[in-house]
Amino acid sequence: MASQKPILVVAGIGNGTGTGAATAREFAKKGYRVALIARNAEHLEKAALDIRNDGGEAQAFPASEYSYAEIHRVFEEVKKQWPNDQTRVSVWNVGFAVWKPFLETTEEEVKESVNTNIVAAFAFAKESILAFKGQGLDENGARGTLIFTSATAAWRGNITTSAVSAGKHGLKALAQSLNKEFGKQNIHVAHAIIDGVILTDRYKSARPVELHGNEDVRLNPESIAKAYVYLAQQDRSAWTFELDLRPAHEKW
Amino acid sequence: MASQKPILVVAGIGNGTGTGAATAREFAKKGYRVALIARNAEHLEKAALDIRNDGGEAQAFPASEYSYAEIHRVFEEVKKQWPNDQTRVSVWNVGFAVWKPFLETTEEEVKESVNTNIVAAFAFAKESILAFKGQGLDENGARGTLIFTSATAAWRGNITTSAVSAGKHGLKALAQSLNKEFGKQNIHVAHAIIDGVILTDRYKSARPVELHGNEDVRLNPESIAKAYVYLAQQDRSAWTFELDLRPAHEKW
Amino acid sequence: MASQKPILVVAGIGNGTGTGAATAREFAKKGYRVALIARNAEHLEKAALDIRNDGGEAQAFPASEYSYAEIHRVFEEVKKQWPNDQTRVSVWNVGFAVWKPFLETTEEEVKESVNTNIVAAFAFAKESILAFKGQGLDENGARGTLIFTSATAAWRGNITTSAVSAGKHGLKALAQSLNKEFGKQNIHVAHAIIDGVILTDRYKSARPVELHGNEDVRLNPESIAKAYVYLAQQDRSAWTFELDLRPAHEKW
Amino acid sequence: MASQKPILVVAGIGNGTGTGAATAREFAKKGYRVALIARNAEHLEKAALDIRNDGGEAQAFPASEYSYAEIHRVFEEVKKQWPNDQTRVSVWNVGFAVWKPFLETTEEEVKESVNTNIVAAFAFAKESILAFKGQGLDENGARGTLIFTSATAAWRGNITTSAVSAGKHGLKALAQSLNKEFGKQNIHVAHAIIDGVILTDRYKSARPVELHGNEDVRLNPESIAKAYVYLAQQDRSAWTFELDLRPAHEKW
Repeated sequence: MASQKPILVVAGIGNGTGTGAATAREFAKKGYRVALIARNAEHLEKAALDIRNDGGEAQAFPASEYSYAEIHRVFEEVKKQWPNDQTRVSVWNVGFAVWKPFLETTEEEVKESVNTNIVAAFAFAKESILAFKGQGLDENGARGTLIFTSATAAWRGNITTSAVSAGKHGLKALAQSLNKEFGKQNIHVAHAIIDGVILTDRYKSARPVELHGNEDVRLNPESIAKAYVYLAQQDRSAWTFELDLRPAHEKW
Repeated sequence: MASQKPILVVAGIGNGTGTGAATAREFAKKGYRVALIARNAEHLEKAALDIRNDGGEAQAFPASEYSYAEIHRVFEEVKKQWPNDQTRVSVWNVGFAVWKPFLETTEEEVKESVNTNIVAAFAFAKESILAFKGQGLDENGARGTLIFTSATAAWRGNITTSAVSAGKHGLKALAQSLNKEFGKQNIHVAHAIIDGVILTDRYKSARPVELHGNEDVRLNPESIAKAYVYLAQQDRSAWTFELDLRPAHEKW
Repeated sequence: MASQKPILVVAGIGNGTGTGAATAREFAKKGYRVALIARNAEHLEKAALDIRNDGGEAQAFPASEYSYAEIHRVFEEVKKQWPNDQTRVSVWNVGFAVWKPFLETTEEEVKESVNTNIVAAFAFAKESILAFKGQGLDENGARGTLIFTSATAAWRGNITTSAVSAGKHGLKALAQSLNKEFGKQNIHVAHAIIDGVILTDRYKSARPVELHGNEDVRLNPESIAKAYVYLAQQDRSAWTFELDLRPAHEKW
Repeated sequence: MASQKPILVVAGIGNGTGTGAATAREFAKKGYRVALIARNAEHLEKAALDIRNDGGEAQAFPASEYSYAEIHRVFEEVKKQWPNDQTRVSVWNVGFAVWKPFLETTEEEVKESVNTNIVAAFAFAKESILAFKGQGLDENGARGTLIFTSATAAWRGNITTSAVSAGKHGLKALAQSLNKEFGKQNIHVAHAIIDGVILTDRYKSARPVELHGNEDVRLNPESIAKAYVYLAQQDRSAWTFELDLRPAHEKW
């Protein structure tokens, strides 16, 4: 029987080349059991397999959608999977982004932005906090750490960001509210503003190959993941609510 | 036949004792034809009647809900009502607020917050901007002015504001995006942060009568309305995107 | 003997073509006696004369520097000049700006930025608030209104703004502190962020004449002055701490 | 002869029980040579000695004041001390804080706040950046990392913070300007907002002993130091400009 280990729950894995998957790998290396949540079961299974092949422990938990009911179901399954362990870190890495002039932005896009960026994040936060509340303090003085992946659009609206910035501003407000409400219960809520382009498969296929290696202009998913590990390891005397992450040469 | 006049469209009239109705009255006094939009047809009709009794021009346009389709329908009706006039100012005064600990906030309340504060505001903004785009500059150099009534919760999340602050942050992001996108087209978008309690019927019934007259501690709806008139009258060389309004003694 | 009138004290008149002088003219038209403060006695006298020629009442109060002692002396002289009147509005329109790469910014420029933008503003604020505290409420429920002219650099640092943004951020912090501290005493403190270029003599000589008339791209000093009149006239139930003012086409 | 090592320059050591000294110790453990700068030579020597006793390398560099000339002199001495090494991290931990009602705040206190929090920080930043510019990239892709210790007062003014918030706002503006200007040159500038009370000797003598061990309510200096180590180790693809650090139970 495996010894007790902390669990990481991470939602939003995409095709396995971005922040979510890198976060899963990084925490797996630190000894966490990793619960991977995403809508695409195939990508999800592959990301879990990659971690297991590297000696980590990971399990795919496909979700048909990011509704309250479905997210609740997945968290219950995580508990069944590892009944003797505790969810100590949970990372919300799901988002919907669209850059369009306002008059071309459809009602559906606006709804998808608020539903994915805000309503679904509420559901994920609820399950995370309920899981954290029921357990004691870890060695850093936390019941658990909830991290939201966010974006520049959480800071300011701009000419093609009406839908996405509305969603990301809402996400930031949720994160800040939760930080203030649950800090007193030793639950650590953090909000990471990714201010730049991440080196994913999509980035690689869209840009000339000579840019791929240029760390001055895009973010490594692994570097974001390391920031999340750092946040999860902060002791309770000095918790960070918000940090920004951007490439050295990014204009802002 | 009446001479040409500017039209104010204002959505969110409540029971006629708050910001929306005061805005309608104030602009009516300045010579605007006023289109009042709200869900409660009875209150709406009474608010319109009050303005007409004071010598102003006002018409009630009940909306069954603040959906894209219904808001579009209402704007079309406004055009039919006053085919020779132009909508020059439009004020979004609709909002949904709930103050609750996060774990008591229901999925429905989160959805209502984003749907009312963000999705419906998008629909209203779309119709307003489409109306403005089709017309020439007024004497202040604007095609039109779109004002959003917002709240402290647009600035910061707090311990009982997860749902409302998510909605109001989203609204602010929408307003800022629109300001940046449409300023170049001489459309003025503004965001007013009401940071305090407004003297409405509800306020009066909830607080001791000796507080009602104390202007140091609560906002007059008429004072907010005057701020909106000021915003609408600014010339294009010096437009305000955001201002806050709070009583003199308000702690912030 | 002249009847009792409110006094405006405005510091920072420059060559009489900018915000300070326009503010003086606008308040003079509203019936204020105007005390003009600046370091250049010649320009100052001319600005006062212009107002008197237009039927207003204005007096020049040259200050050799914006030190505590000198600002105190000037406020005392204003009292001597109009012993039966009360200073009701005071506008700080003095600033020092330099746009330079950081390594080219000299120690002297940094010092001048903090001394002018912050230390001198403290002195002006002190004298203004002391004047306001000693008098009763006016018809808007204020003992007095103190307005700071500020700039985009109060919002964010940027690549050539280390010195000026440090100064303007400090000014904003002062204004916000004062607003929170003195609101309860019915003293209204406001901060106006001018986000764009103002049409002054300097602007006119630096730009092609065809731009001068284009109100979409630069601010009229008179429009800023009107914003200040609006701020001074707000009733105490709905005071604004901060507003931004920018031309319709300004990118931000 | 000692092998080549990175140098940390840290200014502001106080009595050796706070953030500056903890930062020195933490970087010394990571293999940095540590240059300690402060005005109190005695405390400084003791802090350096403590590090050497723990097997680290540290040298005291007393500064008679934080003027441009004196800070320049100290940086030159650091170079002389370790001519074969490079300053890779530099931490500004100097500040002046006073909490007083505005009218009790003296001209001298305002000047000391801007001189210490802003003007002196400019001098320290200049020497740091000049040192960084002349050297190649380290393994994280940085020429150097400059970290400013800041405070809540950098975020907002409040009723007793006019002087300190003006200074800290200015410091933040400087930090942000430098981050934007020098990121392109692979110089990493960061701003840490300490939002809470730090467990120093002063804290211990002012509060009951049962609070000393309560990590929920005050910051460990070592935890802040670890945040600085984390910032210095971020790779250039994902640099943080600003993070906040506060105890779990801190109200904000």
